[in-house]
Amino acid sequence: MLEITGHTRVFGILADPIHQVKAPQGLNRIMAERGVDGVMVPFHVASADLATVLTGLRAVKSFGGAIVTVPHKTAIVPLLDAVSDAARLVGAVNAVRREPDGRLVGEILDGAGFVAGLRAAGHDLRGRSAYLAGAGGAANAIAFALAEAGIARLTVHNRTAARVEDLFGRLRRLFPDLPLASGDPDPTGHDLVVNATSLGLRPDDPLPLDASRLAPGQRVAEIIMQPAETRLLREAAARGCRTHPGLPMLEGQLALMADFLGMVPPAR
Amino acid sequence: MLEITGHTRVFGILADPIHQVKAPQGLNRIMAERGVDGVMVPFHVASADLATVLTGLRAVKSFGGAIVTVPHKTAIVPLLDAVSDAARLVGAVNAVRREPDGRLVGEILDGAGFVAGLRAAGHDLRGRSAYLAGAGGAANAIAFALAEAGIARLTVHNRTAARVEDLFGRLRRLFPDLPLASGDPDPTGHDLVVNATSLGLRPDDPLPLDASRLAPGQRVAEIIMQPAETRLLREAAARGCRTHPGLPMLEGQLALMADFLGMVPPAR
Repeated sequence: MLEITGHTRVFGILADPIHQVKAPQGLNRIMAERGVDGVMVPFHVASADLATVLTGLRAVKSFGGAIVTVPHKTAIVPLLDAVSDAARLVGAVNAVRREPDGRLVGEILDGAGFVAGLRAAGHDLRGRSAYLAGAGGAANAIAFALAEAGIARLTVHNRTAARVEDLFGRLRRLFPDLPLASGDPDPTGHDLVVNATSLGLRPDDPLPLDASRLAPGQRVAEIIMQPAETRLLREAAARGCRTHPGLPMLEGQLALMADFLGMVPPAR
Repeated sequence: MLEITGHTRVFGILADPIHQVKAPQGLNRIMAERGVDGVMVPFHVASADLATVLTGLRAVKSFGGAIVTVPHKTAIVPLLDAVSDAARLVGAVNAVRREPDGRLVGEILDGAGFVAGLRAAGHDLRGRSAYLAGAGGAANAIAFALAEAGIARLTVHNRTAARVEDLFGRLRRLFPDLPLASGDPDPTGHDLVVNATSLGLRPDDPLPLDASRLAPGQRVAEIIMQPAETRLLREAAARGCRTHPGLPMLEGQLALMADFLGMVPPAR
């Protein structure tokens, strides 16, 4: 990190609890690598105080923006001056940029981070078919990012079918031409298979889909970062699939966050 | 500095303009030396926004406090939950600590920093007589700190005599037994002679007092930091006085600020 001076731009991460956050380490490293005179610090903010803190930060001219995480990602949306179409339709924001005039602009980069991680590993998504297990917050963000990345069709499998329909209704507003299907546990016939549920965090979790139907040629991607190799990824590898662990999503996302927050070195 | 993580306490400096501030460099160095997991960052806040920003920072649980400088030192007093007697009577605050319950407590350390700088240079003030040129903000803070340090009597010289009387009225409320005198430009008969005016910042400034009356045995101290050697200090040295430049006040103050803001390493 550059020495902090009166010229340094200040970024925060808004979270509660705060101790476990990793964004300051990641983004301070990225700013150092890029030669950016900025610093990210932890802002521990309870849900009840989010609006008050945002009002205060809006008035700090050296404040550049914030990463937003649990429990603020949904609650922050109506408190911002503008959000992207994807953030509005996903109903969540995980990065907020402060414009020079004090306006706060929100974006959701969870899904784009996932796609960036796949791209960095050489997986282009344009024209591919995708199968998504899950319809929660992470799955919503990934569905929009997959659509944005130009997939040819999307199948979503979720225990509660109503959540799939709800997601499809919002996806259609931004991507009216994307073929959508409500799926079952069988991922057969899709180029990309994604687990966007929390199943796999614990060793005795059931699989999020029927892994016995996976076949060579399919790519199987995971959002779970810990353990690095989930049971799904193990079974996929055993069946000849290429696998993609959860951690690159975080790496991809950090770079996108740095870009969105304007963490660029001064022009020469 | 330690790596910034979710455990790091965040401190700020509130100022407008912000680019010239030096407290982040000084206090980040002190925290590093002390092994404190904290970071000080610049908060650029306009006068009109001070109350809003304080309300926001009060709700940030990882916020430990702030250094306060131009133009907020006087305006911040009524916005705090508590201030020290000296800060109330000086009418200014330059350090604010956030208590764990969110209360903001203010202190004025300008004068105490000056006294700490003298002490660090081996100048004890107890029982000494002091002559102070000036009755503005810095002079007020130093007058209270000299009284607190146990001087035997205080003479204040200022072009506008009403400001001296006003200062004396407030000093008497906290130090009713301290002999006070309104002086003239002649500092004869005082152990310590202090310039607390801004005269000396520019090379063609008139002297703040009649330097031709300075005599060996007197200590002559300066609050001006730049230039390091003012014309007053040069003339004092030429007349055999011991001199004390302005910079140690800042050093003394940084350590006091770190103590007041609770920048101490975790107990073992």
